[in-house]
Amino acid sequence: MDQSNIFSPDDLASFYDLVHRRRDVRAEFTGEPVDPRQLTRMLLAAHAAPSVGLSQPWDFIVVADDDIRRNFERHVREERDVFAETLDDDHARRFERIKIDGVLESSLSVVVTYDADRGAPNVLGRHAIADAGLYSTCLAIENLWLASTGEGWGLGWVSFYRESFLRDLLAIPDSVRPIAWLCLGPVTALHSVPDLERHGWRQRRTLAEALHFEQWHNVEGSEVFGEGTTPLGGSVRGH
Amino acid sequence: MDQSNIFSPDDLASFYDLVHRRRDVRAEFTGEPVDPRQLTRMLLAAHAAPSVGLSQPWDFIVVADDDIRRNFERHVREERDVFAETLDDDHARRFERIKIDGVLESSLSVVVTYDADRGAPNVLGRHAIADAGLYSTCLAIENLWLASTGEGWGLGWVSFYRESFLRDLLAIPDSVRPIAWLCLGPVTALHSVPDLERHGWRQRRTLAEALHFEQWHNVEGSEVFGEGTTPLGGSVRGH
Repeated sequence: MDQSNIFSPDDLASFYDLVHRRRDVRAEFTGEPVDPRQLTRMLLAAHAAPSVGLSQPWDFIVVADDDIRRNFERHVREERDVFAETLDDDHARRFERIKIDGVLESSLSVVVTYDADRGAPNVLGRHAIADAGLYSTCLAIENLWLASTGEGWGLGWVSFYRESFLRDLLAIPDSVRPIAWLCLGPVTALHSVPDLERHGWRQRRTLAEALHFEQWHNVEGSEVFGEGTTPLGGSVRGH
Repeated sequence: MDQSNIFSPDDLASFYDLVHRRRDVRAEFTGEPVDPRQLTRMLLAAHAAPSVGLSQPWDFIVVADDDIRRNFERHVREERDVFAETLDDDHARRFERIKIDGVLESSLSVVVTYDADRGAPNVLGRHAIADAGLYSTCLAIENLWLASTGEGWGLGWVSFYRESFLRDLLAIPDSVRPIAWLCLGPVTALHSVPDLERHGWRQRRTLAEALHFEQWHNVEGSEVFGEGTTPLGGSVRGH
């Protein structure tokens, strides 16, 4: 067995710094050629994610081809219009300023898919929750996201597309579901505030607003776990 | 804007070490009382996850109450039997040896939920993919998982339960979906090999088996991105 607590305070601080610096990138990609060793490390991190019943239901399609990316970007632009038409005037004006993808500007893309048949029918831990394998796939995506941030790259998750279009574009089998189109590559810098907040689309909540204790309706314990890393009083008992 | 590439090689190595050391814990919890500052840091990391349209659709219910945890553990045992009955003799024998939760042994639990109404109806990036908010919630869970590993804790995701049972137990509104019951707390150590692999339930795949290039059927590029961090040849062009 490994020792569990071999992370130094400095390591821990640098990890938290990474988590809080990570951004969803659209406009800051440089598009430069990448070092495959970096991409390999990121993909190994994604592939090391936990999964229900150790099913590892994800696959990664590395897309660098210009034609494929141009086709996808055209589809994204069409879906942008579809969404824009659903908005009232105020939202539509704000949406106009927001860039929704960096498909053509980034160095490459990685498409992550979910295969529900992997390990089936005996997927340990999925009999009661059919979506558990879908959840696993997303855990791999977050590992990739954090790893790319650590490598000095940016990542932008594009979700203005129809799954059927992407399945056709990449010849993905019917039994496999595309989960994410991720733009990846070196960036000039990362913003300290998310794009959607900078553009007045939406503000972040505080952690306190997301916390409940024992049951949903009890939010009083928020005195214990407030905004910041200093407890404001109280304690958490184990037993 | 932040500088994007302020992670040192040592920081990066320690991050990857963390990612690969992370385990799904069942048997190694100590159950000792915890420092609320550690839990606060972990929850802040989870809350810093990316989300579709900055919707932050997650909530966190911290569960330390003994009665609630005992009720949940009883339900988990029943669902264990339900799953066991679906297995053939060989799988059933292997399953017998596998511990599926540490609900009573861990210091506390965190239940993560998904609220599809948050930010609706104008969730930017969700008009074409209804599950995108579900995906966001899972990204927060992976942040929590990695943070707990960095803090010297373990985390075990329990998925042997019915969502309706958990909703009733924690008085979660009908419009909110429980996504995960996570056992958390200090551990004696982390195994270097996942439980399910040690118990012969399932082996991990290599990264090469999960890689595709440009389209699904093309797996030849695996020479470029093999197992390990050293590229075996070739390059990845940006444009």
